Amino acid sequence: MDQYLQAALEEARKGYEAGGIPIGSVLVHQGRIIGRGHNKRVQEGSVVLHGEMDALENAGRQPASVYRDCVLYTTLSPCPMCSGTILLYGIPKVVIGENRTFMGEEELLRSRGVTVEVADNEECFQLMQKFIREKPDLWNEDIGV
Amino acid sequence: MDQYLQAALEEARKGYEAGGIPIGSVLVHQGRIIGRGHNKRVQEGSVVLHGEMDALENAGRQPASVYRDCVLYTTLSPCPMCSGTILLYGIPKVVIGENRTFMGEEELLRSRGVTVEVADNEECFQLMQKFIREKPDLWNEDIGV
Repeated sequence: MDQYLQAALEEARKGYEAGGIPIGSVLVHQGRIIGRGHNKRVQEGSVVLHGEMDALENAGRQPASVYRDCVLYTTLSPCPMCSGTILLYGIPKVVIGENRTFMGEEELLRSRGVTVEVADNEECFQLMQKFIREKPDLWNEDIGV
Repeated sequence: MDQYLQAALEEARKGYEAGGIPIGSVLVHQGRIIGRGHNKRVQEGSVVLHGEMDALENAGRQPASVYRDCVLYTTLSPCPMCSGTILLYGIPKVVIGENRTFMGEEELLRSRGVTVEVADNEECFQLMQKFIREKPDLWNEDIGV
């Protein structure tokens, strides 16, 4: 697996081990990870810190020029919130672990010029499937269902 | 002015007085404010806590049924991140103080069935204009420019 997607999956596993929602993300600038994160709904009672948001938050305040030279890796297809954030900051490329569990706003991203790659990674998929079997209500809460 | 938009403007003014970006928001459920917030880029070094996001975060974890019976008030037209969040949680209505300073994703919201009302409030507009004259770089950072 791609080393950056692997790093995102490690974040997802950290979340799972802490009793949280196992979605992880890393923000990569010119080959270097500048932010790592995972969903913090359970751990911090947050409704905005999805994995992608947490990675961006942990990268800190960056100039627009940095975001425009970044790739965002995420274990799961990005929801409307995370997709909107990708558009806000002008991140040009997103690599997605899988979109079988949840199809996010990939079409919206592509329609705005973002390059979207889907790895269809089995480990990302199986981790989410295990989590959803164990905690279906928590998963529904996270996607507003 | 509408009492809820007034409450959002009070949040924006709190942000201004703290040296931050003066955009405020309140989340209203069945006539009761359940979350208040303002942009925290300066105060908390946050890249995700726009006014709307802060209001949602401060409302805490809510069931989908609550969001679907809410109105979100914001002093400024919601950016892609905040608009995506409105879509994620299925908030059916947004009341916007003004969109002359910045036009957010109002068309996307409408296309997904969200009711969008623009008050075109002069106080909201003048507060942003004053702030942008004083700190143009900070404003550009916040909208990814």
